[in-house]
Amino acid sequence: MLPLLTRIDHVGIACRDLDAAIGRYEATFGLQVVSLEVNEEQGVREAMLGVGRAVATGDLRPGYVQLLEPLGPDTPVGRFLARRGEGLHHVGYGVQDIGQALDAIGVRGVRLLDERPRHGSMGASIAFLHPADLGGVLTELVQAAGPA
Amino acid sequence: MLPLLTRIDHVGIACRDLDAAIGRYEATFGLQVVSLEVNEEQGVREAMLGVGRAVATGDLRPGYVQLLEPLGPDTPVGRFLARRGEGLHHVGYGVQDIGQALDAIGVRGVRLLDERPRHGSMGASIAFLHPADLGGVLTELVQAAGPA
Repeated sequence: MLPLLTRIDHVGIACRDLDAAIGRYEATFGLQVVSLEVNEEQGVREAMLGVGRAVATGDLRPGYVQLLEPLGPDTPVGRFLARRGEGLHHVGYGVQDIGQALDAIGVRGVRLLDERPRHGSMGASIAFLHPADLGGVLTELVQAAGPA
Repeated sequence: MLPLLTRIDHVGIACRDLDAAIGRYEATFGLQVVSLEVNEEQGVREAMLGVGRAVATGDLRPGYVQLLEPLGPDTPVGRFLARRGEGLHHVGYGVQDIGQALDAIGVRGVRLLDERPRHGSMGASIAFLHPADLGGVLTELVQAAGPA
Protein backbone atom coordinates (compact mmCIF):
# COMPACT_ATOMS: atom_id res chain seq x y z
CA MET A 1 0.00 0.00 0.00
CA LEU A 2 1.41 3.38 -0.97
CA PRO A 3 1.70 5.82 1.94
CA LEU A 4 -1.09 8.36 1.68
CA LEU A 5 0.33 10.94 4.06
CA THR A 6 3.17 13.17 2.93
CA ARG A 7 3.77 15.08 6.17
CA ILE A 8 2.30 16.34 9.40
CA ASP A 9 0.78 19.49 7.96
CA HIS A 10 -0.41 21.14 11.17
CA VAL A 11 -1.68 20.77 14.68
CA GLY A 12 -4.99 22.56 15.29
CA ILE A 13 -5.27 24.20 18.70
CA ALA A 14 -8.52 25.58 20.09
CA CYS A 15 -8.21 28.87 21.97
CA ARG A 16 -10.59 31.42 23.45
CA ASP A 17 -8.59 34.49 22.46
CA LEU A 18 -6.72 34.24 19.17
CA ASP A 19 -4.63 37.36 19.66
CA ALA A 20 -3.47 36.20 23.08
CA ALA A 21 -2.63 32.75 21.70
CA ILE A 22 -0.67 34.23 18.81
CA GLY A 23 1.25 36.40 21.26
CA ARG A 24 2.09 33.36 23.36
CA TYR A 25 3.47 31.35 20.43
CA GLU A 26 5.41 34.32 19.12
CA ALA A 27 6.92 35.13 22.50
CA THR A 28 7.68 31.56 23.56
CA PHE A 29 8.94 30.01 20.33
CA GLY A 30 9.58 32.90 17.95
CA LEU A 31 6.96 31.58 15.51
CA GLN A 32 5.45 33.99 13.01
CA VAL A 33 1.95 34.29 11.59
CA VAL A 34 1.93 33.51 7.88
CA SER A 35 -1.84 33.56 7.40
CA LEU A 36 -4.78 35.05 9.31
CA GLU A 37 -8.26 34.17 8.05
CA VAL A 38 -11.91 33.94 8.95
CA ASN A 39 -13.53 30.72 7.78
CA GLU A 40 -17.29 31.29 8.10
CA GLU A 41 -18.09 27.78 6.93
CA GLN A 42 -16.10 26.28 9.79
CA GLY A 43 -17.02 29.02 12.24
CA VAL A 44 -13.47 30.04 13.15
CA ARG A 45 -11.04 32.87 13.08
CA GLU A 46 -7.66 31.27 12.65
CA ALA A 47 -3.95 31.88 12.34
CA MET A 48 -1.29 29.71 10.76
CA LEU A 49 2.21 29.99 12.25
CA GLY A 50 5.03 28.33 10.33
CA VAL A 51 7.22 25.76 12.07
CA GLY A 52 10.62 25.03 10.53
CA ARG A 53 11.78 25.68 7.04
CA ALA A 54 9.76 25.01 3.92
CA VAL A 55 11.26 22.01 2.24
CA ALA A 56 11.11 21.09 -1.41
CA THR A 57 9.25 17.80 -1.24
CA GLY A 58 6.86 18.37 -4.09
CA ASP A 59 4.72 20.72 -2.13
CA LEU A 60 6.14 23.68 -0.33
CA ARG A 61 4.29 23.87 2.96
CA PRO A 62 6.31 23.52 6.13
CA GLY A 63 4.48 22.48 9.28
CA TYR A 64 2.10 24.87 10.97
CA VAL A 65 0.63 25.59 14.34
CA GLN A 66 -3.00 26.45 13.56
CA LEU A 67 -4.69 28.52 16.26
CA LEU A 68 -8.50 28.44 16.17
CA GLU A 69 -10.88 30.85 17.89
CA PRO A 70 -14.58 30.08 17.45
CA LEU A 71 -16.86 32.69 15.89
CA GLY A 72 -19.49 31.76 18.45
CA PRO A 73 -20.46 29.10 21.01
CA ASP A 74 -22.59 27.13 18.53
CA THR A 75 -19.69 26.14 16.28
CA PRO A 76 -17.57 22.98 16.35
CA VAL A 77 -14.67 24.74 18.07
CA GLY A 78 -17.03 26.62 20.39
CA ARG A 79 -18.58 23.34 21.51
CA PHE A 80 -15.13 21.78 21.89
CA LEU A 81 -14.06 24.63 24.20
CA ALA A 82 -17.22 24.29 26.30
CA ARG A 83 -16.71 20.54 26.64
CA ARG A 84 -12.93 20.19 26.97
CA GLY A 85 -11.39 23.63 27.35
CA GLU A 86 -8.47 25.01 25.40
CA GLY A 87 -6.00 22.60 23.88
CA LEU A 88 -5.24 20.26 21.00
CA HIS A 89 -8.25 20.04 18.70
CA HIS A 90 -7.09 18.06 15.64
CA VAL A 91 -4.14 17.02 13.53
CA GLY A 92 -3.82 17.67 9.79
CA TYR A 93 -1.77 15.48 7.44
CA GLY A 94 -0.67 16.39 3.94
CA VAL A 95 -1.83 14.33 0.97
CA GLN A 96 -0.92 14.61 -2.70
CA ASP A 97 -4.46 14.20 -4.02
CA ILE A 98 -7.31 14.61 -1.58
CA GLY A 99 -9.93 13.06 -3.86
CA GLN A 100 -7.92 9.88 -4.23
CA ALA A 101 -7.12 9.87 -0.52
CA LEU A 102 -10.80 10.13 0.47
CA ASP A 103 -11.73 7.35 -1.93
CA ALA A 104 -9.02 5.10 -0.52
CA ILE A 105 -9.80 5.81 3.13
CA GLY A 106 -13.56 5.49 2.68
CA VAL A 107 -13.26 1.91 1.56
CA ARG A 108 -11.03 1.12 4.54
CA GLY A 109 -13.92 1.64 6.94
CA VAL A 110 -13.14 5.10 8.27
CA ARG A 111 -16.13 7.42 8.08
CA LEU A 112 -15.62 10.71 6.28
CA LEU A 113 -17.03 13.84 7.91
CA ASP A 114 -16.60 15.51 4.53
CA GLU A 115 -17.46 13.39 1.52
CA ARG A 116 -16.05 16.09 -0.69
CA PRO A 117 -13.13 18.42 -0.03
CA ARG A 118 -13.84 21.81 1.50
CA HIS A 119 -12.01 25.11 1.60
CA GLY A 120 -9.24 25.19 4.22
CA SER A 121 -6.47 27.52 5.32
CA MET A 122 -4.32 29.23 2.71
CA GLY A 123 -6.38 27.96 -0.19
CA ALA A 124 -5.91 24.28 0.65
CA SER A 125 -8.49 21.58 -0.05
CA ILE A 126 -9.30 19.76 3.16
CA ALA A 127 -11.53 17.05 4.57
CA PHE A 128 -12.08 15.70 8.07
CA LEU A 129 -12.23 12.05 9.11
CA HIS A 130 -14.39 10.77 11.96
CA PRO A 131 -12.54 10.70 15.29
CA ALA A 132 -14.53 7.68 16.49
CA ASP A 133 -12.84 5.60 13.77
CA LEU A 134 -9.37 6.94 14.59
CA GLY A 135 -9.01 6.41 18.32
CA GLY A 136 -10.59 9.70 19.35
CA VAL A 137 -8.40 11.84 17.09
CA LEU A 138 -10.14 14.35 14.82
CA THR A 139 -8.04 13.97 11.68
CA GLU A 140 -7.84 16.30 8.70
CA LEU A 141 -6.39 15.67 5.26
CA VAL A 142 -4.83 18.65 3.49
CA GLN A 143 -3.99 19.07 -0.15
CA ALA A 144 -2.04 22.29 -0.32
CA ALA A 145 -2.92 24.94 -2.90
CA GLY A 146 -0.71 25.42 -5.91
CA PRO A 147 1.28 22.95 -8.01
CA ALA A 148 0.62 19.38 -6.89
CA MET B 1 14.41 36.12 17.86
CA LEU B 2 15.72 33.03 16.10
CA PRO B 3 13.05 30.36 15.60
CA LEU B 4 13.56 27.61 18.14
CA LEU B 5 11.43 24.95 16.47
CA THR B 6 12.77 23.12 13.44
CA ARG B 7 9.71 20.99 12.64
CA ILE B 8 6.60 19.28 13.99
CA ASP B 9 8.35 16.16 15.21
CA HIS B 10 5.34 14.11 16.24
CA VAL B 11 1.81 14.02 17.54
CA GLY B 12 1.42 11.88 20.65
CA ILE B 13 -1.82 9.88 20.77
CA ALA B 14 -3.05 8.07 23.87
CA CYS B 15 -4.62 4.68 23.26
CA ARG B 16 -5.83 1.77 25.38
CA ASP B 17 -4.56 -0.98 23.08
CA LEU B 18 -1.32 -0.24 21.26
CA ASP B 19 -1.53 -3.18 18.88
CA ALA B 20 -5.06 -2.24 17.80
CA ALA B 21 -4.02 1.40 17.31
CA ILE B 22 -1.02 0.38 15.22
CA GLY B 23 -3.27 -1.83 13.11
CA ARG B 24 -5.66 1.07 12.56
CA TYR B 25 -2.95 3.48 11.37
CA GLU B 26 -1.37 0.83 9.16
CA ALA B 27 -4.67 -0.13 7.57
CA THR B 28 -6.05 3.38 7.17
CA PHE B 29 -3.01 5.34 6.06
CA GLY B 30 -0.37 2.77 5.14
CA LEU B 31 1.95 4.04 7.89
CA GLN B 32 4.68 1.76 9.16
CA VAL B 33 6.15 1.25 12.62
CA VAL B 34 9.76 2.37 12.72
CA SER B 35 10.29 2.00 16.47
CA LEU B 36 8.55 0.08 19.25
CA GLU B 37 9.75 0.72 22.79
CA VAL B 38 8.87 0.53 26.45
CA ASN B 39 9.75 3.68 28.39
CA GLU B 40 9.50 2.73 32.06
CA GLU B 41 10.34 6.25 33.21
CA GLN B 42 7.33 7.66 31.37
CA GLY B 43 5.16 4.62 32.00
CA VAL B 44 4.34 3.85 28.39
CA ARG B 45 4.65 1.28 25.68
CA GLU B 46 4.91 3.23 22.48
CA ALA B 47 5.21 3.00 18.74
CA MET B 48 6.58 5.56 16.28
CA LEU B 49 5.09 5.46 12.77
CA GLY B 50 6.82 7.57 10.14
CA VAL B 51 4.81 10.16 8.18
CA GLY B 52 6.27 11.33 4.88
CA ARG B 53 9.78 11.16 3.67
CA ALA B 54 12.83 11.90 5.75
CA VAL B 55 14.19 15.21 4.61
CA ALA B 56 17.76 16.43 4.84
CA THR B 57 17.28 19.53 6.97
CA GLY B 58 20.21 19.04 9.31
CA ASP B 59 18.52 16.32 11.24
CA LEU B 60 17.01 13.34 9.55
CA ARG B 61 13.74 12.65 11.32
CA PRO B 62 10.52 12.86 9.33
CA GLY B 63 7.29 13.42 11.24
CA TYR B 64 5.85 10.66 13.38
CA VAL B 65 2.59 9.48 14.77
CA GLN B 66 3.49 8.36 18.29
CA LEU B 67 1.02 5.90 19.78
CA LEU B 68 1.13 5.63 23.59
CA GLU B 69 -0.33 2.84 25.72
CA PRO B 70 0.06 3.29 29.47
CA LEU B 71 1.89 0.64 31.49
CA GLY B 72 -0.76 1.07 34.19
CA PRO B 73 -3.53 3.38 35.41
CA ASP B 74 -1.23 5.34 37.73
CA THR B 75 0.89 6.82 34.95
CA PRO B 76 0.51 10.14 33.15
CA VAL B 77 -1.07 8.52 30.08
CA GLY B 78 -3.19 6.20 32.25
CA ARG B 79 -4.61 9.20 34.11
CA PHE B 80 -5.15 11.04 30.83
CA LEU B 81 -7.19 8.11 29.48
CA ALA B 82 -9.28 7.94 32.65
CA ARG B 83 -10.00 11.67 32.50
CA ARG B 84 -10.40 12.35 28.77
CA GLY B 85 -10.46 9.05 26.90
CA GLU B 86 -8.41 8.14 23.87
CA GLY B 87 -7.12 10.92 21.64
CA LEU B 88 -4.49 13.57 21.10
CA HIS B 89 -2.19 13.72 24.12
CA HIS B 90 0.66 16.08 23.17
CA VAL B 91 2.64 17.60 20.33
CA GLY B 92 6.41 17.35 19.96
CA TYR B 93 8.52 19.93 18.13
CA GLY B 94 12.08 19.47 16.96
CA VAL B 95 14.87 21.68 18.30
CA GLN B 96 18.54 21.83 17.38
CA ASP B 97 19.84 22.04 20.95
CA ILE B 98 17.48 21.12 23.73
CA GLY B 99 19.60 22.62 26.51
CA GLN B 100 19.66 26.00 24.83
CA ALA B 101 15.97 25.74 24.01
CA LEU B 102 15.03 25.04 27.65
CA ASP B 103 17.16 27.94 28.84
CA ALA B 104 15.53 30.29 26.35
CA ILE B 105 11.96 29.16 27.05
CA GLY B 106 12.40 29.15 30.83
CA VAL B 107 13.18 32.85 30.87
CA ARG B 108 10.11 33.56 28.72
CA GLY B 109 7.79 32.55 31.53
CA VAL B 110 6.79 29.05 30.44
CA ARG B 111 7.22 26.49 33.19
CA LEU B 112 9.33 23.45 32.36
CA LEU B 113 8.01 20.06 33.48
CA ASP B 114 11.53 18.77 32.88
CA GLU B 115 14.33 21.09 33.97
CA ARG B 116 16.79 18.73 32.30
CA PRO B 117 16.33 16.65 29.16
CA ARG B 118 15.12 13.08 29.52
CA HIS B 119 15.31 9.98 27.39
CA GLY B 120 12.71 9.91 24.63
CA SER B 121 11.83 7.76 21.65
CA MET B 122 14.57 6.50 19.36
CA GLY B 123 17.36 7.87 21.52
CA ALA B 124 16.17 11.48 21.42
CA SER B 125 16.61 13.95 24.25
CA ILE B 126 13.26 15.39 25.22
CA ALA B 127 11.59 17.72 27.70
CA PHE B 128 8.00 18.67 28.37
CA LEU B 129 6.61 22.18 28.89
CA HIS B 130 3.67 22.96 31.14
CA PRO B 131 0.34 22.90 29.30
CA ALA B 132 -1.13 25.58 31.57
CA ASP B 133 1.37 28.07 30.10
CA LEU B 134 0.65 27.00 26.50
CA GLY B 135 -3.12 27.17 26.20
CA GLY B 136 -3.82 23.67 27.45
CA VAL B 137 -1.37 21.99 25.07
CA LEU B 138 1.13 19.56 26.56
CA THR B 139 4.20 20.43 24.50
CA GLU B 140 7.39 18.42 24.09
CA LEU B 141 10.75 19.52 22.73
CA VAL B 142 12.77 16.88 20.89
CA GLN B 143 16.44 16.89 20.01
CA ALA B 144 16.89 13.89 17.75
CA ALA B 145 19.73 11.46 18.38
CA GLY B 146 22.73 11.49 16.12
CA PRO B 147 24.57 14.31 14.39
CA ALA B 148 23.14 17.68 15.35
